[in-house]
Amino acid sequence: MKLIILISDGMGDRPIPELKDKTPLEAAKTPNMDLLAKRSECGLMDPLGPGIRAGSDTAHLAILGYDPYKVYTGRGPFEAGGIGMDVREGDISFRCNFATVDEKRIILDRRAGRIKERTDELSTTLNGMKLEDVVCYFKESTAHRAALVLRGKNLGNKVTDVDPHKIGVVPPRALGLDKESKKTAEVLNEFVERSYQLLNNHPVNKERRSKGKPPANIILPRGGGLAPSIEKFSDKYNLKSACIVEVGLIKGIGRYLGMDIIDVPQATGGLDTDTLAIGKALIKALGNYDFILCNVKGPDLAGHDGNYQAKVESIEKIDLMVGYILKNLPSQVCLSLTADHSTPVSVKDHSGDPVPILFFGPQVRVDEVDKFGERAVTKGGLGRIRGLDVMNILTNLGNLSEKFGA
Amino acid sequence: MKLIILISDGMGDRPIPELKDKTPLEAAKTPNMDLLAKRSECGLMDPLGPGIRAGSDTAHLAILGYDPYKVYTGRGPFEAGGIGMDVREGDISFRCNFATVDEKRIILDRRAGRIKERTDELSTTLNGMKLEDVVCYFKESTAHRAALVLRGKNLGNKVTDVDPHKIGVVPPRALGLDKESKKTAEVLNEFVERSYQLLNNHPVNKERRSKGKPPANIILPRGGGLAPSIEKFSDKYNLKSACIVEVGLIKGIGRYLGMDIIDVPQATGGLDTDTLAIGKALIKALGNYDFILCNVKGPDLAGHDGNYQAKVESIEKIDLMVGYILKNLPSQVCLSLTADHSTPVSVKDHSGDPVPILFFGPQVRVDEVDKFGERAVTKGGLGRIRGLDVMNILTNLGNLSEKFGA
Repeated sequence: MKLIILISDGMGDRPIPELKDKTPLEAAKTPNMDLLAKRSECGLMDPLGPGIRAGSDTAHLAILGYDPYKVYTGRGPFEAGGIGMDVREGDISFRCNFATVDEKRIILDRRAGRIKERTDELSTTLNGMKLEDVVCYFKESTAHRAALVLRGKNLGNKVTDVDPHKIGVVPPRALGLDKESKKTAEVLNEFVERSYQLLNNHPVNKERRSKGKPPANIILPRGGGLAPSIEKFSDKYNLKSACIVEVGLIKGIGRYLGMDIIDVPQATGGLDTDTLAIGKALIKALGNYDFILCNVKGPDLAGHDGNYQAKVESIEKIDLMVGYILKNLPSQVCLSLTADHSTPVSVKDHSGDPVPILFFGPQVRVDEVDKFGERAVTKGGLGRIRGLDVMNILTNLGNLSEKFGA
Repeated sequence: MKLIILISDGMGDRPIPELKDKTPLEAAKTPNMDLLAKRSECGLMDPLGPGIRAGSDTAHLAILGYDPYKVYTGRGPFEAGGIGMDVREGDISFRCNFATVDEKRIILDRRAGRIKERTDELSTTLNGMKLEDVVCYFKESTAHRAALVLRGKNLGNKVTDVDPHKIGVVPPRALGLDKESKKTAEVLNEFVERSYQLLNNHPVNKERRSKGKPPANIILPRGGGLAPSIEKFSDKYNLKSACIVEVGLIKGIGRYLGMDIIDVPQATGGLDTDTLAIGKALIKALGNYDFILCNVKGPDLAGHDGNYQAKVESIEKIDLMVGYILKNLPSQVCLSLTADHSTPVSVKDHSGDPVPILFFGPQVRVDEVDKFGERAVTKGGLGRIRGLDVMNILTNLGNLSEKFGA
């Protein structure tokens, strides 16, 4: 028996007057999701708990069976893992920006003109720096983004951000909020100062200045987190697992959990993504893997943009993918379709509203729900579950879980 | 966005043969609650957990987002806070009765003839007593009720009651169940003995004896509790908050949580209370506060009395209040209507049956429920939630909560 979790990112929503008080999912034409719901057991799912607003990272951790209140210590480690850095237990990781400062260190641009080219050369200059007994690993991500991993003994993770999230000021020095974090803060402040010294007259920046572009002459870290000790997903469930996901943050989680990452070139992570290509990659991957996590980002983007029409359209594109998957699914598969959280277009951010979820498989207690929507599923057999329940339910339906007791 | 929680105290019930197996809420004429349900998302709520019998105090703590299993150490601190005593972290507080004993200290009346007059003079005699390094603060409440607060170093809260809950016996000496509580017990026993010495021939009691009334010549403490360290409600949710509640115990909780107390002179706390005056006070208070907790006591009293007709009537009186509130509610308000627990008339005490709950607000996923009743709401979109979920759901609907994760 193989297992699939399909996540329509941020799909949950609230009633929208322009859609006759339907949600985008309720208003969208989703014949394939509805057919799947008709053959499934349906209900509501709270990623973290009723009313609690989840991030994409904490929600995915919960859905994959890892309690975020125990393992999530900040975004840094997953961001660094997501761009392929080797993050180990005890490391302190940060999200970073390449930024522009003047000679007084006043921030002129938090994104160095949204620099795109040659950030790998700048990273090479910084990567491997030793400060006291700490090694600093640094790697560029997309555009002005990067990640920093500090590896050394007795490093705390309670450090304030260097990135002040505004321009016209000198970046504040990081503060350590306990004894071990004071050491982290010292190393971090020294790294920031040296990044200026090493980058300011770097050939890449000389070229940028000659072209009238702002130099990427300082690194601004934020979101420091201690790399949690996490049991690998394959070990936890004894499943050979992969993820087909569009954005770095979720890739980072997959990589962190030891899952293989399957890249789909046509998956853009935008509203223009090729959902059918993602569906095909998923069906193909079923030949090699026992478990596949698939996430399509579109509905979340449309929610953040406050664009209900785009959200309806992106849900309809995902419905096409669901249709392809249904048509090509082997019989011995259990599948869950859900969202990681709600991103209501009226809120333009994640909310704590529960999301619809369904479980499909050969032995599911099929209920009477025949539409996949936030309110339709409340009549389902599943009731209201939590993110941490999903893998337990799925492995149970697949007859793959251990018994507790005799 | 402003938030309201309306609590119809003890409203939940069980089917009653005399009401054709309807509950009092199901049998009552509640057009306004029904209209509100029609425009809301409905479900069931377990104050503490399915089947668990809650007190009014523990239920209110849970509904306000404080886990009673972590913060509730006995009724004393909230009772003392409720009558305006200054209760500080580390204090040990007790509920007390003025009682009548004979010269052998045998209890003749646990309530001193339900004494009403001049208990403040008796309290003054006892208040401020110093025993070892402990100061005893004492204050009268309504009728024969009072509260005692012990303030000193290293006081434990594991002490047995002095009030034996029966007459014809000498009050048992308090026992301390651990080392620190032994000190509390010693102080407490000394306080009880001195209360007799100071009160027995007090002018108030001389007058009572002359009128043939039993003297209030001893204090019987019970329900000792350590004042918990609690984050203020306003800080926890960043909301300027007030409560409009009828009874001391709930006022005590509100005061303890740092909420402002709005007194409504027409609110008697009895079946004769003026619910419309309470509704008007609530609408007026919305001008000054972000959050209001409102509790009307009637249904609980009728439940304790085992009087189903009085319970139906008191629910219908609350329905009038709901009608007034609905008619005068500003648009930017999220409101939850529920009970703190069930007080079935057949039980004459709190039970662990879940209570109906609804959430109303501009962006709620309105469901198909059009009656507010214990069984009608089970068809609602909310499913079955817990007391601790209420504030999370309400602040989420009001877009006032923090995100966990990215």
